[in-house]
Amino acid sequence: MSSPAPTVRHARREDVPAILSLIRELADYEHELHSVEATEATLLSTIAFASPSETSPSPTTGLPQTELTTPTKPARCLILFTPSGEPAGIALYFYNYSTWRARAGIYLEDLYVKQSERKRGYGKRLLVELAKEVVAMEGGRLEWAVLKWNEPSIQFYESIGAKMMSEWVGMRVDGEGLTKLAALLD
Amino acid sequence: MSSPAPTVRHARREDVPAILSLIRELADYEHELHSVEATEATLLSTIAFASPSETSPSPTTGLPQTELTTPTKPARCLILFTPSGEPAGIALYFYNYSTWRARAGIYLEDLYVKQSERKRGYGKRLLVELAKEVVAMEGGRLEWAVLKWNEPSIQFYESIGAKMMSEWVGMRVDGEGLTKLAALLD
Repeated sequence: MSSPAPTVRHARREDVPAILSLIRELADYEHELHSVEATEATLLSTIAFASPSETSPSPTTGLPQTELTTPTKPARCLILFTPSGEPAGIALYFYNYSTWRARAGIYLEDLYVKQSERKRGYGKRLLVELAKEVVAMEGGRLEWAVLKWNEPSIQFYESIGAKMMSEWVGMRVDGEGLTKLAALLD
Repeated sequence: MSSPAPTVRHARREDVPAILSLIRELADYEHELHSVEATEATLLSTIAFASPSETSPSPTTGLPQTELTTPTKPARCLILFTPSGEPAGIALYFYNYSTWRARAGIYLEDLYVKQSERKRGYGKRLLVELAKEVVAMEGGRLEWAVLKWNEPSIQFYESIGAKMMSEWVGMRVDGEGLTKLAALLD
């Protein structure tokens, strides 16, 4: 391909305004802007950021070089810049676990590419970076979820080797349900 | 309730044989025993264990006191003992992230109660412990997945406040698909 390449690296603290703006754009696109509670401050305290003085992922190991992940700061964020240096996409992810394999992996929570920067392979580039990290960490799986009606995305994901986990359905407890469940046996 | 209570705590290294045996029992129950690659050694290196000298979760904060979680050791494990001290159930979990809330939470990867110890509320007890940890860490969500045909489990989960995320479907890349995806743009 002759087109100039985008660059992808782990997000730094200075990227937080761009990250929040992409998160809001994604939510707006899904008509869910009112659901965004994230602020610059909460993003700063829940994502493990890279330092401006190091290249992450490491050019030698392929592994991230960021602040430590912890239970309350479990996320890492890849950010993609266009050839002209504009932030155009993000992949927010954390680490999952397969019991049967006793092996870690990556769960991609959110992938977003700016609408004006679509059809340039940027989404694929971010997924490839995540697959590289799973391989570098000797992990087992790269997983994510997609809205069932989003056929074009599902076709794209299948074209790059993803299998649909159609036998499974997710369950969630949040908000008031969580405090109720926590107190259920008191 | 007048029945004697089970105890639940975070797993210690000494519990690994019991954990592996419960994992194998679960896989056997699902006719998938051949899929279990986990060994005592791999479990020891991928679960953040509690120390025998500390109570975990902490009686004061409700938070786990274990080895640090890391990207390649992302899992924690709760283990349930019957009133007579037999290991009868496990909950293996890791930490997830909600982008819109910029908040961590818990993803329950596997919940298993020995067949001979069912119908005693042990599964509920493990879920309540996890909800307590999410509340203690000021997290956003407790999530897990269930096989769609498993109606009794789904009904039980809904009865304790879980919502089915029916609009979403999981996608997974593993095995050879992972190395192919990692090399897709090389």
